[in-house]
Amino acid sequence: MAAAADGFRTLDEKSVVDYIKATPTLHAQLGNQLDGLVVKEVGDGNLNFVYIVVGPAGSLVIKQALPYIRCIGESWPMTKERAYFEALALKEHGRWSPDHVPEVYHFDRPMSLIAMRYLKPPHIILRKGLIAGIEYPLLAQHMSDYMAKTLFFTSLLYHSTLDHRHAVAEFCGNVELCRLTEQVIFSDPYRVAQYNRWTSPYLDHDAEAVREDDTLKIEVAELKSNFCERAQALIHGDLHTGSIMVTGDSTQVIDPEFAFYGPMGFDIGAFLGNLILAFFAQDGHADKGNDRQAYKQWILKTTEETWNLFQKKFISLWDEHKDGNGEAYPVSIYNKPELQLLVQKRYMAGLFHDALGFGAAKMIRRIVGVAHVEDFESIADASKRAYCERRALDFAKMLLKERRRFQSINQVISAIQEIPAC
Amino acid sequence: MAAAADGFRTLDEKSVVDYIKATPTLHAQLGNQLDGLVVKEVGDGNLNFVYIVVGPAGSLVIKQALPYIRCIGESWPMTKERAYFEALALKEHGRWSPDHVPEVYHFDRPMSLIAMRYLKPPHIILRKGLIAGIEYPLLAQHMSDYMAKTLFFTSLLYHSTLDHRHAVAEFCGNVELCRLTEQVIFSDPYRVAQYNRWTSPYLDHDAEAVREDDTLKIEVAELKSNFCERAQALIHGDLHTGSIMVTGDSTQVIDPEFAFYGPMGFDIGAFLGNLILAFFAQDGHADKGNDRQAYKQWILKTTEETWNLFQKKFISLWDEHKDGNGEAYPVSIYNKPELQLLVQKRYMAGLFHDALGFGAAKMIRRIVGVAHVEDFESIADASKRAYCERRALDFAKMLLKERRRFQSINQVISAIQEIPAC
Ligand SMILES: Nc1ncnc2c1ncn2[C@@H]1O[C@H](COP(=O)(O)OP(=O)(O)O)[C@@H](O)[C@H]1O
Ligand SMILES: Nc1ncnc2c1ncn2[C@@H]1O[C@H](COP(=O)(O)OP(=O)(O)O)[C@@H](O)[C@H]1O
Ligand SMILES: [Mg+2]
Ligand SMILES: [Mg+2]
Ligand SMILES: [Mg+2]
Ligand SMILES: [Mg+2]
Ligand SMILES: [Mg+2]
Repeated sequence: MAAAADGFRTLDEKSVVDYIKATPTLHAQLGNQLDGLVVKEVGDGNLNFVYIVVGPAGSLVIKQALPYIRCIGESWPMTKERAYFEALALKEHGRWSPDHVPEVYHFDRPMSLIAMRYLKPPHIILRKGLIAGIEYPLLAQHMSDYMAKTLFFTSLLYHSTLDHRHAVAEFCGNVELCRLTEQVIFSDPYRVAQYNRWTSPYLDHDAEAVREDDTLKIEVAELKSNFCERAQALIHGDLHTGSIMVTGDSTQVIDPEFAFYGPMGFDIGAFLGNLILAFFAQDGHADKGNDRQAYKQWILKTTEETWNLFQKKFISLWDEHKDGNGEAYPVSIYNKPELQLLVQKRYMAGLFHDALGFGAAKMIRRIVGVAHVEDFESIADASKRAYCERRALDFAKMLLKERRRFQSINQVISAIQEIPAC
Repeated sequence: MAAAADGFRTLDEKSVVDYIKATPTLHAQLGNQLDGLVVKEVGDGNLNFVYIVVGPAGSLVIKQALPYIRCIGESWPMTKERAYFEALALKEHGRWSPDHVPEVYHFDRPMSLIAMRYLKPPHIILRKGLIAGIEYPLLAQHMSDYMAKTLFFTSLLYHSTLDHRHAVAEFCGNVELCRLTEQVIFSDPYRVAQYNRWTSPYLDHDAEAVREDDTLKIEVAELKSNFCERAQALIHGDLHTGSIMVTGDSTQVIDPEFAFYGPMGFDIGAFLGNLILAFFAQDGHADKGNDRQAYKQWILKTTEETWNLFQKKFISLWDEHKDGNGEAYPVSIYNKPELQLLVQKRYMAGLFHDALGFGAAKMIRRIVGVAHVEDFESIADASKRAYCERRALDFAKMLLKERRRFQSINQVISAIQEIPAC
């Protein structure tokens, strides 16, 4: 396909090779051996095209954004500039958490194309691992580390306001992706909308109840305002278990095309909320060989540890950098250990409630909104699936509305454990 | 003075005339009669130079920003790009509230120069009117109108998120002025700082108490985060009674050089807080001929009416535009009158508490920070001044810490009225 005036052309498995041949950095990455390259489009993502390129002396992944949403088609246009923000975020988050973010080898803005490290097998998407019932003993450790670092170092606890506003302005450009989130997470599930779906007829009344729950709608409006107005840190913006690739000892966060300066709780909530979705889906995956009871407990333990470790690491970073450039709490004012403690306690409590709110909103939208999760979708028996989904939905509604009464993650976990089997 | 490489040169009363001669729009504004122009630098402001230009057939005001803070001098550099943001804000606010914002005739970015409508006598700075004990019967009406319109129409209640983020990004450039606010309002009063001053020795202990009040510091940190992170609307950023010019029937808001997308409560609080400062200063202006008791009540009534009218008008605008482009509360979701009411109630309660918090912070900084107000400074007797300032300071500290227990402006007014004379 010929290049358009803006220098963009859509690649395919064949033209990816030509692109690599024309791009010296990519040659080098492949050890300058381009004969016998194997290119495979994996494309299990929703929005973009991803090519895995393996040669005799090296490998890489090429991701290209097209000017529409892949899983819907050209009828839902979406700026391909999202690749620019994804590349920026990969680099910035990679700078702070290099162990958990794939390296960017090359970015081509006109082509909306990112070349990055290939996360080789046995890396799989975490969501698939959770469905398969695989335990990842380091997951809480790694994800808390990734979140603590990427969020702390891009917040006003580390940034001067000068650096912060500059970065905020740059990411304001990613507005189309923010709008997509606003629509599919904070709006569509709460109204009749073209692309909404749910396990029908089982959840017809449940979906309707969401649309008629005034308290829920008031709470969701507050979260949405927060999402639209509050530039707290550079967030990933789409940190569900489908944006994480794992092995037993590696955890890698991909796909930050929704990145912008927003509320930290949105990322933390996305991850925790998706773990909780995985928890509720387990009953649908239980079989005679494996009742999944132990695995359910592992998921809850991981949820709990992720928050607790996150909190600990985030506060350590804060303590470590309290004499730095961060301008939120100048040490000249917050100069006593007990005051520092009080301030941190208040900050973390706010963040915790934000995370619970956003996490709950992200659970709800996966059950009655446009984009569902494989955790539930892979439960073939619709009535069983609806049973799992309803329990998740009911819990999420409660959590969204009553999040402020939870003082610790342990209380949240207990609330989950106390839900009767019904 | 010769122009610098960037096209900037500092004007004076003489070269202002040459500038006008070289600028056709300004000729025209002066009815093309440039003979006998009278130019006078008024310069009672803190930061910039303001020239009043009156000719036989027209008049105008020229405001020029220099690359430092006027009242301090070249030792405190400050970007002259602030004039760009002032001009942008005058135009945007003027678009929504033309009755209360002077028209911009001309803007010259390299020269950091704004030409605008001359607010002719008997217009005076409101603060001077309040010191003189003059009642402005339309003040609450006008200021509530200005604030309701400028804030509503630049918020997500009216903007699409696309427009909003675009505007937010633009005003992120005004970061140096935001930093000045952060420093002098949210930081310096709460620590030992070079430029802090207060009526010494009377208030030495009071200033120290502010620096040692942990609860106050925790609350102020929350306001500061809000100020730095929350892009709620295009705020004026410096809306004290020295930024308002008045006559009996005209109210004009000038000097929005601190404008950016920030929390609405910052503007509302600035205005209300400065009215309350004026209230506490009255005892220092009382004399045998006028005990100022009636005037104090007028100030309180105006404070009360301003908030109540603001609330009413803001909600009317919301109702009127609920089917528009605003994306915070889509009518497809917030579709029932009772839900709309609940949402508005929640929104206004949050805004009220923000306004009280910011207003209180702005009071405190005028008593123990770098920039004081003429309301108090004009009380020659230091012990009398300290008495007035201490009462204002104590009230402000209480208000900042306990703002969430006030449910209406009437309760705030009652609290003021109940302060004993001591
Ligand atoms: N760096 C990588 N290494 C290996 N596989 C990857 C890599 N990046 C993406 N993939 C695969 O491609 C899929 C889609 O990638 P993703 O970045 O999530 O795209 P989308 O934005 O379309 O969701 C992922 O689910 C994963 O299977
Ligand atoms: N448009 C105007 N018409 C009449 N007087 C004005 C006008 N603009 C400013 N002034 C006078 O100049 C003074 C300083 O203007 P201001 O915009 O507040 O400058 P600064 O940014 O230095 O505080 C005001 O207090 C007022 O007396
Ligand atoms: Mg993806
Ligand atoms: Mg890495
Ligand atoms: Mg994606
Ligand atoms: Mg001024
Ligand atoms: Mg000014």
